[in-house]
Amino acid sequence: MNFCSNCGSPVASKIPAGDHLPRFVCTNCGTIHYKNPLLVLGCVPQWQGRILLCRRAIQPRLGFWTVPAGFMENGETLQAAAARECQEEALAKVEVGSLLAVVSVTHANQVHVMFRAQLSRPEFAPGPESLEVALYEEAAVPWGDLAFPSGEFTLRQYFADRAAGREDHHFTELNRPLRP
Amino acid sequence: MNFCSNCGSPVASKIPAGDHLPRFVCTNCGTIHYKNPLLVLGCVPQWQGRILLCRRAIQPRLGFWTVPAGFMENGETLQAAAARECQEEALAKVEVGSLLAVVSVTHANQVHVMFRAQLSRPEFAPGPESLEVALYEEAAVPWGDLAFPSGEFTLRQYFADRAAGREDHHFTELNRPLRP
Repeated sequence: MNFCSNCGSPVASKIPAGDHLPRFVCTNCGTIHYKNPLLVLGCVPQWQGRILLCRRAIQPRLGFWTVPAGFMENGETLQAAAARECQEEALAKVEVGSLLAVVSVTHANQVHVMFRAQLSRPEFAPGPESLEVALYEEAAVPWGDLAFPSGEFTLRQYFADRAAGREDHHFTELNRPLRP
Repeated sequence: MNFCSNCGSPVASKIPAGDHLPRFVCTNCGTIHYKNPLLVLGCVPQWQGRILLCRRAIQPRLGFWTVPAGFMENGETLQAAAARECQEEALAKVEVGSLLAVVSVTHANQVHVMFRAQLSRPEFAPGPESLEVALYEEAAVPWGDLAFPSGEFTLRQYFADRAAGREDHHFTELNRPLRP
């Protein structure tokens, strides 16, 4: 951040009065510009025991597999965001179910929230951000070709819970950059 | 938003290629400036059956009571944010427990995430953003003087779960402005 989005003047990094962290503060109008974590919403859609994964057509991690997920938009609920991302990336309609995983991705200033979901019908196809979309049996999940650690955490918890006949939710922190 | 935070030129609201929502786009360098929901983290700290509330010293809702909560910062986990807010607003140390409430506050573009928590010791005092901090029995909670609907939802779920001997988590959407 170089300039104030309010008045266009340069900003400087300093700790505002009463605050404890450096912020970008406008040198002209004094507006304080906060930077906060972004929410990424996703789901694990299932159909007759198989789960839906998308192969990414965009960076980062182009060509690797992911659960359908993306940035939450203003004005939507968590569940609506998860369903919309599945619609966009896999052209698939889902019923969003129980909370599955909440991952604080601290190195990226993101919080990933993943739900279980049920495909409304076995219809799906790659959206603009996907190369392929496919249903996977647990034994066929491409663990070595997953795009993101949060997705791997999500899927491992999903299958562990399913084996145990439960639907828990799971917190974790991931604080490591992506593999190159 | 009026100016690009990257180059200082004016921005215009338009739908970028491949997108479906209007964004602020720089008329000079083309940077797309996304606006996304903010996370508010809080907790219901308890001590020997009573819960800790704070009376707000700042706007909005100055003078009304709230669970300790505030904006999550970059680089922290959800639980760390909830504990930090309690430290700042109530000068109280807590052990953060189970997930209690997730509230999509769509009219404010916020997501409020509330946990159960245990006061580490019965020591607390008003931080700079609080007028008073006090432990309340359930029957004494000032329901008519609560600051925010998300806090009321959180507390009602908290006491209902406690009465039932469970620790569930609860989703809801709140889409109405504050009372004046």
